[in-house]
Amino acid sequence: MERHFDQQLGALRKNLIQMASCVETAIANAVKSLIERNSELASLVVQNDEQVDILELEIDKQCVDLLALRQPLAIDLRFITSSIKITNNLERMGDLAVNIAERVIPLNQEPQLKPLIDIPRMATITQTMVKDSIDAFVNRDTELARSVYERDSTVDALNDQIFRELLTYMIQDPANITRAVHLMLISRHLERIADHSTNIAEEVVYIVKAKVVKHRAHAFEEP
Amino acid sequence: MERHFDQQLGALRKNLIQMASCVETAIANAVKSLIERNSELASLVVQNDEQVDILELEIDKQCVDLLALRQPLAIDLRFITSSIKITNNLERMGDLAVNIAERVIPLNQEPQLKPLIDIPRMATITQTMVKDSIDAFVNRDTELARSVYERDSTVDALNDQIFRELLTYMIQDPANITRAVHLMLISRHLERIADHSTNIAEEVVYIVKAKVVKHRAHAFEEP
Repeated sequence: MERHFDQQLGALRKNLIQMASCVETAIANAVKSLIERNSELASLVVQNDEQVDILELEIDKQCVDLLALRQPLAIDLRFITSSIKITNNLERMGDLAVNIAERVIPLNQEPQLKPLIDIPRMATITQTMVKDSIDAFVNRDTELARSVYERDSTVDALNDQIFRELLTYMIQDPANITRAVHLMLISRHLERIADHSTNIAEEVVYIVKAKVVKHRAHAFEEP
Repeated sequence: MERHFDQQLGALRKNLIQMASCVETAIANAVKSLIERNSELASLVVQNDEQVDILELEIDKQCVDLLALRQPLAIDLRFITSSIKITNNLERMGDLAVNIAERVIPLNQEPQLKPLIDIPRMATITQTMVKDSIDAFVNRDTELARSVYERDSTVDALNDQIFRELLTYMIQDPANITRAVHLMLISRHLERIADHSTNIAEEVVYIVKAKVVKHRAHAFEEP
């Protein structure tokens, strides 16, 4: 019985890692399709989202079954309830990657507005946050989770900076406006992806330490 | 024992309704602050968000305690796991109301860009969706949940229309650009709020019928 429970937990863990890996790939490809102006790759991101949705449904079912049949306690219970939240965050991240890809397609039909500098920088930080939040979850590494949380303010600052810069392009020439709006929304989608990886980092601390850090700005710094 | 369990479920239900009511008020006030150009009301929305965050933490704890101590089955188990998701959606809706209010404050420092027509219309539909998704949850009314789901495409269409109209204002005069960007983002925030109420509607169907309708476009129409 105990062994079977461990196997089921292991299967849940494996599915979560697979879902996370799909989402990481989607984000990476969405960013790549923007930078390399590759609309085929952008279309692929849109197509592949179904896989993420299927995994979400499967993981949710695994969680409810584990709760119903196994009545887990303490860290196992926290792991399962957090999995419900993590999967929700991953699904939204997948959707945001699709939203980025959907903006890349019309952008690529026009000449490039400007050489992209800050968006790729923001994308790199965001992608590392996503990867690290998942690694923190897999390895129950609260230190790494904390570092994800700390990087979120850099992403927020970059988003503000990108918004301001794009506004100047819009004011300069009305012909720039549509493309600038697309880029603004891409920047905002990246910022939201970073937020979701922060949510995952918060769940890691909750699973390991039974400590809720959500909505408590300084909780990550507590000893 | 059984009676105590019902009391705890009742307390969870009561907190969820209270949280939903806070979020409804936040959205209503954010929209009102935009339409009436009332920056004080906008600031109030920002301040009051803490209450929503506190309720989220409390509800999450209630859910985990119920799962740990009561080991519920069937509809009660579905109710509790769905509550974790519903609270997540409500918290995001609260944040989006704050995001709207934060855009209203700078908007009110400048003359009005244009008479608002479509945004209030979209806001009214969205607010009704939010209210109905909560009512559907409270009364386990899958028909009402279905109607929430159906209205989402109208909100999406209005959002697209608002974007296109605001683009024309931006192109007309660079002096309009900043205000138009604020309004575009407000429109997008409303559209996201409608999405979250659709998520809640999906959970209602899951609680009542043990049928997952998420990611399945036509599932709501099945007999």
